[in-house]
Amino acid sequence: MNLVLFESGELDQPLPLADPRAQHVLKILRRGPGDTFVAGLVDGPLGEATLVAVDDTALTLAFFPTTTPPPLPAVTLLIGLPRPQTARDLLRDATTLGAAALHFVATERSDPNYAASTLWTSGEWRRHLLAGAAQACDTRLPRVTWTDTLATGLARLPPPGRDRRLALDNYEASGPLPASPGPAPAAGIVLAFGPERGWGPADRAALRAAGFTLHSLGPRPLRLETAVVAALAVQGCGMA
Amino acid sequence: MNLVLFESGELDQPLPLADPRAQHVLKILRRGPGDTFVAGLVDGPLGEATLVAVDDTALTLAFFPTTTPPPLPAVTLLIGLPRPQTARDLLRDATTLGAAALHFVATERSDPNYAASTLWTSGEWRRHLLAGAAQACDTRLPRVTWTDTLATGLARLPPPGRDRRLALDNYEASGPLPASPGPAPAAGIVLAFGPERGWGPADRAALRAAGFTLHSLGPRPLRLETAVVAALAVQGCGMA
Repeated sequence: MNLVLFESGELDQPLPLADPRAQHVLKILRRGPGDTFVAGLVDGPLGEATLVAVDDTALTLAFFPTTTPPPLPAVTLLIGLPRPQTARDLLRDATTLGAAALHFVATERSDPNYAASTLWTSGEWRRHLLAGAAQACDTRLPRVTWTDTLATGLARLPPPGRDRRLALDNYEASGPLPASPGPAPAAGIVLAFGPERGWGPADRAALRAAGFTLHSLGPRPLRLETAVVAALAVQGCGMA
Repeated sequence: MNLVLFESGELDQPLPLADPRAQHVLKILRRGPGDTFVAGLVDGPLGEATLVAVDDTALTLAFFPTTTPPPLPAVTLLIGLPRPQTARDLLRDATTLGAAALHFVATERSDPNYAASTLWTSGEWRRHLLAGAAQACDTRLPRVTWTDTLATGLARLPPPGRDRRLALDNYEASGPLPASPGPAPAAGIVLAFGPERGWGPADRAALRAAGFTLHSLGPRPLRLETAVVAALAVQGCGMA
């Protein structure tokens, strides 16, 4: 945790000792009364927090905003709904790398039961974004959806033509994923990944109709969560 | 598991039902007597295995080698000894991406106790290589060491000048990690990563003296295991 993140309004009241962030401040950062640490408000400013007081039940903190982080890179991910454990790693790592939107969509070969996982229904998914943003020392979280089909997800994209649309595919790729020729176009990059079992023929037709070209990350099949990190890195997401 | 890997000689005897590979063949691949599946011998050929018979205790298999996988890309990783859980992911993912050697070394800020973890002492580390290779559909495993210091690890590298030597550093980078300008030089690429707490000043001096330049993966600090995947992808390791 390179940053301790708080929700807006959360710092108006004491932070219970049982909160993992309170434990982090006391045990890992080893802060005592009067000490400061790097903190931020979710989707708001970065700044410095002062540990004002500690008692038997809670920490009292004061937050002083200093900077506003830049907007996230205009990179959108469309991802065939994966196993919840895969999604957890993806939510965290794609947030760390700075993707601005993560749309998990039902595809021909994704398991529809995955959308009913407590990862999604309990709100747990947001915890992984917070971990990924804290790692990146950023306050900004990507937008996340998980109830669309691939068709709906594609229809929600801005009109094609100005963004860069690349789908990853081990089987029908026209060539390797090209390195980004420079900063992301203002209209953005959309990267599409099939679920663990890959794209089906109707998925590929829908992607091509929406202006995507199919690319490979080489002859070695990668785990989905590894492929997402590799593709974002090749595209330079978060690296400028 | 895109490939079921066996050690040389292991197929001369029945495969016990309790072996996870036996369960994989029966339950996930749903193979019965007479069926075949993709198999390989560690550091040997790829081929096809036939499930000859199943009884109450074991599978009888026959293996028919067909192809010899190409050598691994000439990419060596030097990694400051990380927490065992970080090392597990790293061993698996770097193997999937095709690194030929992984040298975990003691650095100024690595915890010397990590080398005493059962991950290393029990031989568990090799299991993560096998998982990574099976994912990549390759039989070849990287060489792995974990008992050297950074100084010894650097001294064991071939004489500098012909390979490409790049260290990742969030603090003193001279610029972003450059994308590989083409295939890895025959003499190879060496990528060096500090442990979770980063390089210390003596580490940096040793790296520079050994011909490394320091590069960054951008302003967003990545988890070590994410940085390794991102750097290998930017260098095109396993992607040609």
